Amino acid sequence: MEFELRQIAELLAGEIEGNGDQIINSISKIEDAKKGSISFLSNPKYEAFLYTTEASGIIISKDLELKKPVNATLIRVDDPYISFTALLEAYHKIHSLKKQGIEAPVYIGKESEYGVNFYLGAFAYIGENVRIGKNVKIYPQVYIGDNVKIGDNCILYAGAKIYEKTIIGSYCTIQAGAVLGSHGFGFAPQLDGSYKKIPQIGNVVLEDHVDIGANTTIDCGTFESTIIKEGVKIDNLVQIAHNVEVGEHTVIASQAGISGSTKIGRGVVLGGQVGVAGHIRVIDGTKAGGQTGITKTIKKKNQVLFGTPAVDKLGFMKSYAIYKKLPEVMDRIQHLEQKILNLPLIKK
Amino acid sequence: MEFELRQIAELLAGEIEGNGDQIINSISKIEDAKKGSISFLSNPKYEAFLYTTEASGIIISKDLELKKPVNATLIRVDDPYISFTALLEAYHKIHSLKKQGIEAPVYIGKESEYGVNFYLGAFAYIGENVRIGKNVKIYPQVYIGDNVKIGDNCILYAGAKIYEKTIIGSYCTIQAGAVLGSHGFGFAPQLDGSYKKIPQIGNVVLEDHVDIGANTTIDCGTFESTIIKEGVKIDNLVQIAHNVEVGEHTVIASQAGISGSTKIGRGVVLGGQVGVAGHIRVIDGTKAGGQTGITKTIKKKNQVLFGTPAVDKLGFMKSYAIYKKLPEVMDRIQHLEQKILNLPLIKK
Amino acid sequence: MEFELRQIAELLAGEIEGNGDQIINSISKIEDAKKGSISFLSNPKYEAFLYTTEASGIIISKDLELKKPVNATLIRVDDPYISFTALLEAYHKIHSLKKQGIEAPVYIGKESEYGVNFYLGAFAYIGENVRIGKNVKIYPQVYIGDNVKIGDNCILYAGAKIYEKTIIGSYCTIQAGAVLGSHGFGFAPQLDGSYKKIPQIGNVVLEDHVDIGANTTIDCGTFESTIIKEGVKIDNLVQIAHNVEVGEHTVIASQAGISGSTKIGRGVVLGGQVGVAGHIRVIDGTKAGGQTGITKTIKKKNQVLFGTPAVDKLGFMKSYAIYKKLPEVMDRIQHLEQKILNLPLIKK
Repeated sequence: MEFELRQIAELLAGEIEGNGDQIINSISKIEDAKKGSISFLSNPKYEAFLYTTEASGIIISKDLELKKPVNATLIRVDDPYISFTALLEAYHKIHSLKKQGIEAPVYIGKESEYGVNFYLGAFAYIGENVRIGKNVKIYPQVYIGDNVKIGDNCILYAGAKIYEKTIIGSYCTIQAGAVLGSHGFGFAPQLDGSYKKIPQIGNVVLEDHVDIGANTTIDCGTFESTIIKEGVKIDNLVQIAHNVEVGEHTVIASQAGISGSTKIGRGVVLGGQVGVAGHIRVIDGTKAGGQTGITKTIKKKNQVLFGTPAVDKLGFMKSYAIYKKLPEVMDRIQHLEQKILNLPLIKK
Repeated sequence: MEFELRQIAELLAGEIEGNGDQIINSISKIEDAKKGSISFLSNPKYEAFLYTTEASGIIISKDLELKKPVNATLIRVDDPYISFTALLEAYHKIHSLKKQGIEAPVYIGKESEYGVNFYLGAFAYIGENVRIGKNVKIYPQVYIGDNVKIGDNCILYAGAKIYEKTIIGSYCTIQAGAVLGSHGFGFAPQLDGSYKKIPQIGNVVLEDHVDIGANTTIDCGTFESTIIKEGVKIDNLVQIAHNVEVGEHTVIASQAGISGSTKIGRGVVLGGQVGVAGHIRVIDGTKAGGQTGITKTIKKKNQVLFGTPAVDKLGFMKSYAIYKKLPEVMDRIQHLEQKILNLPLIKK
Repeated sequence: MEFELRQIAELLAGEIEGNGDQIINSISKIEDAKKGSISFLSNPKYEAFLYTTEASGIIISKDLELKKPVNATLIRVDDPYISFTALLEAYHKIHSLKKQGIEAPVYIGKESEYGVNFYLGAFAYIGENVRIGKNVKIYPQVYIGDNVKIGDNCILYAGAKIYEKTIIGSYCTIQAGAVLGSHGFGFAPQLDGSYKKIPQIGNVVLEDHVDIGANTTIDCGTFESTIIKEGVKIDNLVQIAHNVEVGEHTVIASQAGISGSTKIGRGVVLGGQVGVAGHIRVIDGTKAGGQTGITKTIKKKNQVLFGTPAVDKLGFMKSYAIYKKLPEVMDRIQHLEQKILNLPLIKK
């Protein structure tokens, strides 16, 4: 993919300083950039690279005053970081639009339908009575079970597995290998020590603008729905158990896990490897640091949690500072005991 | 799938109160149920919903005395929860029986065999010399390596990957994306700081009634077998390393991991995100709370463990209660030191 | 696969004691071995089994003096363990060489090329403009996106997913279900509480001799590369976020996770379920015990870390020994307070 710098400046509504005819074929960090690439300068601490970079183009602030001559062509904009992400978006859009049509072989079950601008990669499987909206891209080796519904403008990357009856809203992205609708962990203990499976026949519902990471697993409800609400962002290798509900615009980092029937509120942020117990509620705006274990319902809003079982992070850290010195603390206690013992005037 | 309430009552050996002709097409919670759905009342705290629900049918106890009129048709049974799970099972069975026959395209290697009522989804791959029993359902995009054996009545969901020589018993269920037989982490450190791979040529053995969750990974033995015994239930995203043995009816929750050559006993329960070190034994009946790290052999039966390194949970929690107050404890110690210092009569 | 013991002895440059005509068809532990299998004796504590084993052949040290007669044929070598792993390697090599040619159906995009001794399993997908070296084995249902490069002598097991532009060196092994190049967790918080996706258009680079475990996920760089250097060994279900760099010969055990833009040094060892925060550095030679949470840059070389937040392991353990006795410590403090209170001579 090649562009003239002039075209990029137009896209970003920026002003060109220098040669707009230069050809751009890659995007780089300012410190690593080579001829043919475009970069940006947002953080002033990287300004020195502006005068040495080999990049062909640099996006910089309207207001930056140059201290030395610059070889690269400049594109002057209001906010270089925002303009740079706009450039990433444009690149991504052009790129993903390239995927069109139905490759062979694929499997499409009876009574299934899809909208315009459809991409279906080879070896993808679509069951019966599936409804797929407009502008949907389904990469190779994706599995879509019977009676699934997928809204408009969704992308499902290679090998995602969507069990039957799953409902996916619009503008959702599912990364490779993610599993939606697997049968959760419902086993009734029997008197002989064995476990009897409780069939899981519910489904998974993703609302709009939900992102699901690679190899993440979301179990279906036992007979109801596991619900991931509007705008939720879920990272790689996350586990969401049956009947969980995740509130709007909540963010769940990699390898976190939420146990069955728990309700996570709106705007919650769970760090990497966080664990949340089953059958509890985590209120809106809660934040949990990496590896935190939330074992009880969190009722107080906007707390920052840490540790297992989870407590207020500030309190945890104060205790941890002392924990690290416990041997010294013990010495002090022993010293006190010795002193008391040696008090000449104590009688028992 | 549609049934008359009468048919459901027969299935559950229950008595009908009201109109048995009603058509049921879904299963719901009593508080959310709509016309056409069936629900149940087991926990008395939900009784109020019985008088307001829009469900067409409700399964209730033989002994429950109605306090108000009920719109729904009732099915009276001995234990509503048990009857309800029986209904889920029936639904699941009818549903899974629908899958029959061999879709196209599939790949079946030479000298491979399968029993009656076989389902093989499109893009499934079966290697050479594979033996598959009766009533087995293999969903699309499953991979089965050479020389694998699968017993009767197993279900392998979409995209499960079974390496060569794996042996799977009867009545086993493998969820989507699970990997059985991957080559474990065997690397011999070399003098130059690099690592040399130790080839992993063993296999995985699942006994009967084993359930494996979505995207879980079980490594093959180095040259022996990694063994998962009768009735073991393993959740999503669990890691079982090479040469591990997991005892009968043990339950392993999501994202737990067991390191190489460790032996887990019978009836053990590992919570979510538990880690178990390599080359140790965990005795029968051990329970470990979420995120516990078991670092040493556990010899005392039926303990409940917590923390990392794992200790008795009750003890951990007593210490944790004090941990949370360590800053106050330090104040008390400082106060004591001050007092001792101020004692008028102490001479050294 | 069948061999005469004589052939194995030749392969290992060992000396035969006994009948070299025996036929070997399996490899076993000395304590479990049956007729037709070969085993080894390295650890003297297993010597008793030498005199009772049913194995047809045993690899033992040149120097071992027999205390009783042995039924098995012996192969005398310098180091039985090294010879045994050489045998595993030979077995593995013969076995993997069996896979040759292109099964049907596969999908190969335009302008893609591959070298000699290629194996491509059925339902594998290769995008456009892909470059694949010599002696590469790609198992069924693997996905390889556009513009991917793969060096010589690599093996990609069933269902591995390689996003576009990924670069894989020589002698790399990717286990089943691993995902390379997924789009990482880049979301810019908006004023209304929602998140805007930052497109991820970079790639993943694996240098030579890298091993990636089953269902592990490695995100592409935002617009740069996520880099896994020479000789790195990564276990199952590991998460590597965008723009991470992992140094030469570093080893990462199962279910560990590394957050975005972090740089891990050379020769680092991360235990199972370790978490590493984003935007930090972990210096060469660092070791972290299982479940450790590294939250800050580690500058001091060759430390052993433990706990969350990570500290020196020895220090952590000393504190933990006291932590476990905190209730007793509290008793001692209370006792001291009581004693001070009861001091007859203290005046305020």
